[in-house]
Amino acid sequence: MAEAVRPTLESLGEIAVLARIFPRLPESDAALLGPGDDAALLAAPDGRFVVTTDMLVHGPDFRWEFSEPEDLGWKAAATNLSDVAAMGATPTALVVALAAPAATPADVLEQFADGLRLACAELAPGCGVVGGDLSTSDVFTVAVTAFGDLEDRAPVRRDGARIGDVLAVAGELGVASRGLRMLFEHGRDEALRRDAHAVGRQLRPVPPIALGVAAAEAGATAMMDLSDGLVLDARRLAQASHVDLELDALSDDELRGGEDHSLLATFPSGAPMPEGFRPIGSVVAGNGRVLVAGAPFEELGGWDPYEQWDGKLS
Amino acid sequence: MAEAVRPTLESLGEIAVLARIFPRLPESDAALLGPGDDAALLAAPDGRFVVTTDMLVHGPDFRWEFSEPEDLGWKAAATNLSDVAAMGATPTALVVALAAPAATPADVLEQFADGLRLACAELAPGCGVVGGDLSTSDVFTVAVTAFGDLEDRAPVRRDGARIGDVLAVAGELGVASRGLRMLFEHGRDEALRRDAHAVGRQLRPVPPIALGVAAAEAGATAMMDLSDGLVLDARRLAQASHVDLELDALSDDELRGGEDHSLLATFPSGAPMPEGFRPIGSVVAGNGRVLVAGAPFEELGGWDPYEQWDGKLS
Repeated sequence: MAEAVRPTLESLGEIAVLARIFPRLPESDAALLGPGDDAALLAAPDGRFVVTTDMLVHGPDFRWEFSEPEDLGWKAAATNLSDVAAMGATPTALVVALAAPAATPADVLEQFADGLRLACAELAPGCGVVGGDLSTSDVFTVAVTAFGDLEDRAPVRRDGARIGDVLAVAGELGVASRGLRMLFEHGRDEALRRDAHAVGRQLRPVPPIALGVAAAEAGATAMMDLSDGLVLDARRLAQASHVDLELDALSDDELRGGEDHSLLATFPSGAPMPEGFRPIGSVVAGNGRVLVAGAPFEELGGWDPYEQWDGKLS
Repeated sequence: MAEAVRPTLESLGEIAVLARIFPRLPESDAALLGPGDDAALLAAPDGRFVVTTDMLVHGPDFRWEFSEPEDLGWKAAATNLSDVAAMGATPTALVVALAAPAATPADVLEQFADGLRLACAELAPGCGVVGGDLSTSDVFTVAVTAFGDLEDRAPVRRDGARIGDVLAVAGELGVASRGLRMLFEHGRDEALRRDAHAVGRQLRPVPPIALGVAAAEAGATAMMDLSDGLVLDARRLAQASHVDLELDALSDDELRGGEDHSLLATFPSGAPMPEGFRPIGSVVAGNGRVLVAGAPFEELGGWDPYEQWDGKLS
């Protein structure tokens, strides 16, 4: 019976749905002109802006049996904020394109908007939603594009690691993937009972956004967001920088687990590292390999392009 | 048999697919750092940037029985470029998030990339793709986010129309919707034989991008992209500006047809209008109505929120 009183996207129509969503969206301090026109206008104080985009698709990227709509909004914001932070930038704004089945209850989108707002408030205060697009699709799909401000600093790229640098990480390793395993094994309720921390991190990642800027200011030579697992992502950094990365002995979960959205960075040896980063290895001569406890880690490492195909262009 | 030799996204894997797509993407003159890192870095010379996003979903927004992949790439670029132009800005770059079934032949994405490149070259030279995301979904879905540069000008909003202004349009009216009707009635091949122009405009819209800047420089008081039909969109401009808009006598197709992506603008009476704009009415005292040949046009006008639900936040 409760279902009967939940108005849907198609029963309400566009204008009423937007009227419900708008007040829940976070506002951006960078917005010179927000939603409501053909396009938004954003401030880019140093004459440049960082931009990244990421799509979450029901099925491969999230499932309603595990995620509440608020979780999804949080995750859609957090994963993009993390890519901005990994350049050494402060997130300023998001645009959100969303396609949902016409029979979706409108409160699902309200809670999704709540998740966007909570994530921005917690992870990147001042960052907000400046525009978007709502469409219909049989598959619930969210595409977030995020912007950031480098405040006159150079971007911290993947290709700057130098031999002798310290390899460091900020944030957890292998926790989000443990949470996903729990969800698949036990379902949401039981998984939360057994390991609320790991499941929480899978559903609502907490990337260390402010440490991106801190790392840049501390002179990080390279940095990236850890989304596909430490070994796989570290190999990308090693290849871009034309070096090898030697990792300390770590557990299999720490080496392979994806979706933590921690920050991997390299710092000049001897330079003070921002609080929140811990050393996990070092940069050595080589050409794109990852060594674990001295031996090359040849496997792909936690990521299967056929099962978890998710090609990022940026 | 030909199908057997078309490698798919899942048979090739991410890296090989991206290697095929990358060389086909248009480059952006504004890119300070392009694809390949956590995020791109773009120039915003006047310290601001225009941003808009739009999603195209297989089914409601396009169909493979009508559109070739190259058509889709073109349309995904063109519709977003048009929203940038409608602010009076020059398009600088796009990011593209795309989700496709894993069994999609990789050449579909190559041709999609060709469409993006051709549209940028034709409509907005210097604009290119600086980043993106590839995902899997049962429903082919594209989300494009576009950026533009106002070159120190004020944005041309929807809310600036003043009583006495001339209402003008650049581009065609009612042609794209005639093309869509032909496609539904006759299928692609026969529709193209009967009305190649209208079908072509439906599949590959040709918004007058450069006229957005021209209108801004000529002192346009308000402007918007015509995506949902003249009457419906004109009503939005009238409501935002707290005026009525009096349209000349026009055909039903011209009044209701959507997806032309022409520009609707208001200019001060007596001011010279950029070549390419033609007057179609005037701004009169009122509060958000559209009058056609003197009588209020009360119907919704060419757009049904239940059948064509497509709520835009910006």
